[in-house]
Amino acid sequence: MTSEALLSRLRDVAGDRLSTGTAVREHHSRSESHHHGVLPDAVVFPASTAEVQAIVAACAEYRCPMTAFGAGSSLEGHVVPVHGGISVDLTRMNRIVRLNAEDLDVTVEAGVTRKQLEKHLRSSGLMFPLDPGADATLGGMASTRASGTTAVRYGTMRDAVLALTVVTANGRAIRTGSRARKSSAGYDLTRLFVGAEGTLGIITELTLRLHGRPEAVAAATCWFDSIDDAVASVIAIIQLGIPVARIELLDEVQVDAVNRHSRTSYPAAPMLFFEFHGLSAANVAEHAAEVSGIVEAQNGHDFTRADSPEARAAMWQARHDAFHASLALRPGSRAWTTDVCVPISRLADCIRETKADLATSHLLGPLVGHVGDGNFHLIMPVDPASAEDLAEAERITDRLVERALAMDGTCSGEHGVGLGKMRFLEQEHGPAALDVMRAIKQALDPLNLMNPGKILPEAGSR
Amino acid sequence: MTSEALLSRLRDVAGDRLSTGTAVREHHSRSESHHHGVLPDAVVFPASTAEVQAIVAACAEYRCPMTAFGAGSSLEGHVVPVHGGISVDLTRMNRIVRLNAEDLDVTVEAGVTRKQLEKHLRSSGLMFPLDPGADATLGGMASTRASGTTAVRYGTMRDAVLALTVVTANGRAIRTGSRARKSSAGYDLTRLFVGAEGTLGIITELTLRLHGRPEAVAAATCWFDSIDDAVASVIAIIQLGIPVARIELLDEVQVDAVNRHSRTSYPAAPMLFFEFHGLSAANVAEHAAEVSGIVEAQNGHDFTRADSPEARAAMWQARHDAFHASLALRPGSRAWTTDVCVPISRLADCIRETKADLATSHLLGPLVGHVGDGNFHLIMPVDPASAEDLAEAERITDRLVERALAMDGTCSGEHGVGLGKMRFLEQEHGPAALDVMRAIKQALDPLNLMNPGKILPEAGSR
Repeated sequence: MTSEALLSRLRDVAGDRLSTGTAVREHHSRSESHHHGVLPDAVVFPASTAEVQAIVAACAEYRCPMTAFGAGSSLEGHVVPVHGGISVDLTRMNRIVRLNAEDLDVTVEAGVTRKQLEKHLRSSGLMFPLDPGADATLGGMASTRASGTTAVRYGTMRDAVLALTVVTANGRAIRTGSRARKSSAGYDLTRLFVGAEGTLGIITELTLRLHGRPEAVAAATCWFDSIDDAVASVIAIIQLGIPVARIELLDEVQVDAVNRHSRTSYPAAPMLFFEFHGLSAANVAEHAAEVSGIVEAQNGHDFTRADSPEARAAMWQARHDAFHASLALRPGSRAWTTDVCVPISRLADCIRETKADLATSHLLGPLVGHVGDGNFHLIMPVDPASAEDLAEAERITDRLVERALAMDGTCSGEHGVGLGKMRFLEQEHGPAALDVMRAIKQALDPLNLMNPGKILPEAGSR
Repeated sequence: MTSEALLSRLRDVAGDRLSTGTAVREHHSRSESHHHGVLPDAVVFPASTAEVQAIVAACAEYRCPMTAFGAGSSLEGHVVPVHGGISVDLTRMNRIVRLNAEDLDVTVEAGVTRKQLEKHLRSSGLMFPLDPGADATLGGMASTRASGTTAVRYGTMRDAVLALTVVTANGRAIRTGSRARKSSAGYDLTRLFVGAEGTLGIITELTLRLHGRPEAVAAATCWFDSIDDAVASVIAIIQLGIPVARIELLDEVQVDAVNRHSRTSYPAAPMLFFEFHGLSAANVAEHAAEVSGIVEAQNGHDFTRADSPEARAAMWQARHDAFHASLALRPGSRAWTTDVCVPISRLADCIRETKADLATSHLLGPLVGHVGDGNFHLIMPVDPASAEDLAEAERITDRLVERALAMDGTCSGEHGVGLGKMRFLEQEHGPAALDVMRAIKQALDPLNLMNPGKILPEAGSR
């Protein structure tokens, strides 16, 4: 239990931005998934890197665990404390620090959300293209190495982050890079903290790469008789190097869920949603025509352009509604999501075997995928009170991960490890690589206070 | 001095692939730069990851330093031992392990060179686009986080490596990733070993991203009255997001050197060399036309297409000859190269101030740059026996790095730290970040045997 002495120290730092109220603590023990932990003893809302430093130093002195919290949109339980302690909520750190339009970069505080940044950039001709669906904080997106629908063209947070400010476990603040586009000057600390889920330090600021808004944007949809035909189209598009900006797969279960929830009328069949970004209308038309030809050759149907801003917005809204549309299939349910990524040549096999598994299950599992990267999800609505549901969702997840790893893939394409994927890490990386991760954790957080119990199974729980 | 007992152990592992001959040891104490170290006590040429494991385990037991060696094309002294010990030459590990054409990836041993891979891929329709100039080994390129002329379009080794096999300091072999295009499954060990210059382990295999060979390629040159106009063109091209595949700057000194060495007849003025990759001739023509318009608006002259394979080959040969052309300006000299990278908005300032510095120096400093990334080099021919030359080259380098860091740039864009940039690391990253790097080094190589005396200044030498 966090001592009164520590709480008093934290109050000195943050004043009334320290809360011990039950509702606030409960909010910080949950995220948008089936995972749950315990209540933090208190929640603190720092307003600057210096305050985070003071909080971390105080917690270190009192040997008190710290868990960083952003928008709470995590899907694997990263922000859920497992040992109580202090929840460090970064949402008050929501300033755009500096936009360098000429250099296509921006520095933001960790609590700035993706949509807030997008709004700020609107008049600049620039954009931050990463789109994981949720309006996550950028600090959270970096911490989970998030990506989403546009990663096939613009990469993931690994690629988007130029530099970070991080408060490490000893309360010091470091900057992990510069605004240079590339560097060979020492160990890549930026990439070490991206995806570390707050277990090595707390990200307080990020310098991000931006892109010019494309002069022309086009979009299209098409449907297939089988998932195999859809995936074969994707493979051909990627192999030809057609620079699609998004290429999303929805299976027939997902399309049906979307139709019910978003009042769309897509054919209840496997579908691909495309977006093209280019220098000119002629340029994107060329990309779309190439894709149309491939789709036709793979028995695709009704390749339909949706180029107007309104048509595109409706289409991507439907895609983004997939999560809630899936939950709506079973009122009152919570989402159990999966997230594997495999080499694209194995994608059709992986999806086919997974759907065969689901066909024998009592659970529904609508499938959506960022298939240009070989990444897909099931969104299984479960009753969190039903042991049977949870056991079945776990069984399906276990078999899916097993399958992905056998195909030289990964147990998490973009959602991170958190609590949900810890049990797969040793199988994916092997004991020697996991020992390297443990050595890094031990070196940078020797007291195991930074989001303990995430990513690396703790000694007691192995 | 390496003991006979250790040499005998290494002979058990590698048989006659262990050499203690003077010529071989001398070759492994040098690289293509002015840096020099000491002779290794012996050179071993392992043929497999298992042999590297046995070598590392034996050296660890005898507390013997190890320095990995590839093509020897390093420019900052990475492969030059400073404490003797064993040079681990990976050039016998030159097998292409597995090409997965459908997935656009290939797994190679660390001693495979860039040109060897390119030759292997020739009939596959695929390419490995990274081109640092030298025919470096891919293990060496990963270890220095190399990039080169195509990074503006295809990224650096940071982006090109999907997974590594690494022998760590305890003799264990780990695989740092899978063939999945993206992953959020734990700490990014791949990016930690990319750029670690063999100080955390020895890379023995790499899985690399490939790209489809572009259907159409075009190239062009143009010249300017001033470097400022040339750089202004580059900034406009990058900001508009025109997907140039290469955009290289040569200053008038470099163009003159190239003309003399390669018997070309370019105007002795600042020049830009371009390459465009696209889906069709129309596509690259569109890119070239956009660039031509920008160049014209910035007072550029003679935008000239060089599209035939022969014309392009001649042009890029001239560009690649820049290094030797610079040395030829002063027969018998060695190269002192610099390598900074700055935000592109500061590039013209940085180059202008650097050229003003050179104008007052007795040294020549032809300038070449991967300017789409804000990265440029001086290639200063120096007499390695002249204390005056070396002091002056160091002075110019110091002032250049100072300037780049003040502009929020980096002391090394792509050549790495090695011996040459160690003294700038604390200034670039700050003491707290450098302590994080030291903690990682200490955790993964507690005996300080993996390429000791590189990247991080040793306690005694600070």
